[in-house]
Amino acid sequence: MPIYHAPLADMRFILNDVFQAEQFWSANEKLAHLDAATAEAILEEMAKFAQNVTLEINRSGDEEGAHFQDGKVTTPAGFKEAFKQYASGGWIGLGADEEWGGQGMPKMLTVLADEMLFATNPSFMLYPLLSVGAGMALSSYASQEQKETYLPKIYSGEWSGTMCLTEPHAGTDLGIIKTKAEPNADGSFNITGTKIFITGGDHDLADNIIHLVLAKTPNAPAGSRGISLFIVPKYLVNADGSLGERNAVSAGSIEHKMGIKASATCVMNFDGAKGFLVGKENEGLAAMFVMMNYERLSMGIQGLGASEFAYQNAAQYATDRLQGRAVTGAQSPEKPADSILVHGDVRRMLLNARANNEASRAFAVYVGQQLDITKFSTDPEAVAKANNRVALLTPIAKAFLTDTAFQACLDAQMCFGGHGYIREWGMEQCVRDLRIAQIYEGTNGVQAQDLIGRKTIKCEGRYLAEYLEDIRDFANGLDPELNFIKDVTLDVATEVEMITQFILERAQENPEFANSAAVDYLHAVGLLSFTYMYARIAKAAFAKPGEFYQNKLALTHYFIQRVLPDINARISKIKAGSEIISGFSEQYFTAQS
Amino acid sequence: MPIYHAPLADMRFILNDVFQAEQFWSANEKLAHLDAATAEAILEEMAKFAQNVTLEINRSGDEEGAHFQDGKVTTPAGFKEAFKQYASGGWIGLGADEEWGGQGMPKMLTVLADEMLFATNPSFMLYPLLSVGAGMALSSYASQEQKETYLPKIYSGEWSGTMCLTEPHAGTDLGIIKTKAEPNADGSFNITGTKIFITGGDHDLADNIIHLVLAKTPNAPAGSRGISLFIVPKYLVNADGSLGERNAVSAGSIEHKMGIKASATCVMNFDGAKGFLVGKENEGLAAMFVMMNYERLSMGIQGLGASEFAYQNAAQYATDRLQGRAVTGAQSPEKPADSILVHGDVRRMLLNARANNEASRAFAVYVGQQLDITKFSTDPEAVAKANNRVALLTPIAKAFLTDTAFQACLDAQMCFGGHGYIREWGMEQCVRDLRIAQIYEGTNGVQAQDLIGRKTIKCEGRYLAEYLEDIRDFANGLDPELNFIKDVTLDVATEVEMITQFILERAQENPEFANSAAVDYLHAVGLLSFTYMYARIAKAAFAKPGEFYQNKLALTHYFIQRVLPDINARISKIKAGSEIISGFSEQYFTAQS
Repeated sequence: MPIYHAPLADMRFILNDVFQAEQFWSANEKLAHLDAATAEAILEEMAKFAQNVTLEINRSGDEEGAHFQDGKVTTPAGFKEAFKQYASGGWIGLGADEEWGGQGMPKMLTVLADEMLFATNPSFMLYPLLSVGAGMALSSYASQEQKETYLPKIYSGEWSGTMCLTEPHAGTDLGIIKTKAEPNADGSFNITGTKIFITGGDHDLADNIIHLVLAKTPNAPAGSRGISLFIVPKYLVNADGSLGERNAVSAGSIEHKMGIKASATCVMNFDGAKGFLVGKENEGLAAMFVMMNYERLSMGIQGLGASEFAYQNAAQYATDRLQGRAVTGAQSPEKPADSILVHGDVRRMLLNARANNEASRAFAVYVGQQLDITKFSTDPEAVAKANNRVALLTPIAKAFLTDTAFQACLDAQMCFGGHGYIREWGMEQCVRDLRIAQIYEGTNGVQAQDLIGRKTIKCEGRYLAEYLEDIRDFANGLDPELNFIKDVTLDVATEVEMITQFILERAQENPEFANSAAVDYLHAVGLLSFTYMYARIAKAAFAKPGEFYQNKLALTHYFIQRVLPDINARISKIKAGSEIISGFSEQYFTAQS
Repeated sequence: MPIYHAPLADMRFILNDVFQAEQFWSANEKLAHLDAATAEAILEEMAKFAQNVTLEINRSGDEEGAHFQDGKVTTPAGFKEAFKQYASGGWIGLGADEEWGGQGMPKMLTVLADEMLFATNPSFMLYPLLSVGAGMALSSYASQEQKETYLPKIYSGEWSGTMCLTEPHAGTDLGIIKTKAEPNADGSFNITGTKIFITGGDHDLADNIIHLVLAKTPNAPAGSRGISLFIVPKYLVNADGSLGERNAVSAGSIEHKMGIKASATCVMNFDGAKGFLVGKENEGLAAMFVMMNYERLSMGIQGLGASEFAYQNAAQYATDRLQGRAVTGAQSPEKPADSILVHGDVRRMLLNARANNEASRAFAVYVGQQLDITKFSTDPEAVAKANNRVALLTPIAKAFLTDTAFQACLDAQMCFGGHGYIREWGMEQCVRDLRIAQIYEGTNGVQAQDLIGRKTIKCEGRYLAEYLEDIRDFANGLDPELNFIKDVTLDVATEVEMITQFILERAQENPEFANSAAVDYLHAVGLLSFTYMYARIAKAAFAKPGEFYQNKLALTHYFIQRVLPDINARISKIKAGSEIISGFSEQYFTAQS
């Protein structure tokens, strides 16, 4: 049976010592109600729920999977009860506005709560996650009446939400969707089309499901400028808020997937279903992106959660498993063998995962703080800067955090040897479940295109320049005894600055260049970001006595020595250019040999 | 439905152009019966079998899995018929000695046949693979009578074989196995104990199963020097070769695994089963290592097969999938979108896989050739040198080829977007099935320990020095027009030589160092090996006109520019030393935070 202990001390360290959250909150009128003790109580409550409820139904949920019969989806045993408990604890609306029944908690804090849920049961987590995403899109773009109708019930968990984008022929390229929205005389629309890969498209956890659907109205402009967003409830809602008749939307089937088997991934058929426009016609993509940007940071948290879960289980297994002897001689001569934790290579795998987890957690809180500034700050300059920062770092949060977490989970699985491959230890499920996080909500390759295109070339590197300025200011302010991380941080900042300049120049000469360089660039900026996080971690740890803090400094050294060198390979690959890639003919790839 | 076309032209290129197999065979008395036309006919026949038989039952085998009921294992639908067809085609003994019913084909050729089977159905392939491994151990160590009794029936497929090493408490550390062998008056032994993870431990494909079992005789020395090897048939064999009574060995259960679900992975209970000593008492490990070294190269081929399968499917999907437009403007303006093959990042993923496949195939044939020299050559000096080469490169063949192939399969899966995560496209099965190849037959971490310890430090770098000499000789003999690969090859050779020297020095000062450096070192030597293979590929391709050969040169450039830079990161990590890794306390890893 897999274990999980919420890493509360590490979370406190990041929140309180590294990011001085309480100071940040108290300096901000809209967050001044929150103090460190309250935040800690929230995390402790979530830890109990994760350890006692979601962890318990994680493997059984994988074994049983979601069911589809007679057009209806049912979730595995225990999911319904867990969802009720989660909803009644107020967790769905933890970060949502109080006006609509949420708890108004900052993202800095909710990312940590989310981590625990993703660690213990990613399939379960996806149900409320989609509700919250739908809630965010509605909060930003829906009419007052729509908000009143839907938001309180979504945050209370009576109803849930989905996002319906992908169609069989197109996922990434939303410009070519075919789902139609035909206007009715009463201002509503009839929605017709098929959507696939709809997480939580149907289930038995809530009384109603509010689908947010992208569709094209008649005579809409071609491409992504002709997409509108519609609310399509599973059950239409009467004027008094009660459930009315069944809408013409239904699940056609569920997918059989590599993992997250307890999460129902549905084919949704809209057969002239009644839909209600959200915001303005043809401006649906912007509304959907509010939701998608939120989900994208969440996918990074999914990575972190899985990687923390994998690390904890692997560390325990490595401690318990007795095989072989240390090269320096028996460490436990009274036992038949030493624990495999004596081997440097086993430690290397564990430390890879741990170094990833601590940097990822800091980074998630950092991005959370930036999001909080955009939402709660009253200083327009700070908001503008934070918006740029969030734009720059969202693809990193989604793609870099899931790429590194997937590798961490593979390392952790490897610590188990053959036992990592069989189901009973839970590691293979962890790997299967996490793999989707690199793929959905825009593949990690698409994230990299977003970073290098919209977030770098389009603004001529301005977002990165602002980021580098903050990083350099921070590094230059470090105590001389932290020169080891200061120097590395400044070096990496220069390397990333130079390769960005290289990219900006090349992209002008050769439009194909950026596409080929994107993933390596994303990893370079990701490694810069982790270096920055370790600089912040080192500063906070250096200020305090004790082994807990010394280990943070040691992990900083580990990161520099054993993880960061990858950046050189990334930069070399970018510098190689794209000619060799575009030079192959299209036929080359499929020519039968 | 996944596709597969055996890459026969690429195989011919490697065999004929790169390694001039026919010349090699004709120069060797024991192989002179084989010519290129016969070799090609064999590959063509295997291609038909792989494309028409094993591919067809790959996904259904995964869906159905192996069954366990009432102590008996049955294989999924179609496996029995396929195995009969495979056996009656003489494929099991393709590389086995003609004396025992084999076809005596060289390893250079059989690796290519194996690749096709691993590409189309790794679960199926494991059944005959274990038979062949058992056959090899018996060929080398068994008595004449034992060979006569078992080998012809194993190679004909009437019977099959297993290797029974791992016990619940120990896999890698065979010195602490507990299975007992108590001598009987008639010279046989009673074998008692439990073995786990036994591939093909029970099944319905053959009339008898010949288990090769590691066990300890009374008063055997402690550790790995006290292990003996026994034949334990499922059914005892009468003097006339007919099947006698059922032996006291049975499957207790089968494992539920991440992948290779159609391969029965059994818990085997030996309850005083009758066993027959193979070779000398306490020298069982050497016999088992004959089998294991054979399997280890095969696992590399498993990687190559999976990666080729994944590449072909991803390339086809990328060609067929229309989404988005090329950055340089629409390539197929008459269609709603361009194929995703226009995107540099999609090509990058495909080329990563393809660059891996072509180098891996060359490397497999190269190691096969070295094995053929050890087996067939009459020149003792050549045999000794080839033995050293095989010793050095076996861990590379097993671990590097599976590590790179797994990454290639992940890249290929990513080309499918969300469709890569669902079962119908076959990519997620490919990833799940391949993952075991990094774990079993000694984890890739253990392979790395073997490389850096026994194969490098123990011989003071001699095996590598011999390898480097051959590589440099080859590079220096290249045409000046191939300076681009010549220079890179010589540079990489120097880098690997220097880091090896560094390791030899550090290992003397600090015994913990090598263990921590091992995986990075294995990848450095692996990248050197691929560079060497591309030097050989480039030489062969340069000599011929036409697009097929030009593309080999282009792929060589791709490898240098986009894959090889990883070696710098590997070397940096090795140079960082191991102090930071061994410095963490044991408690650090599991302390609850």
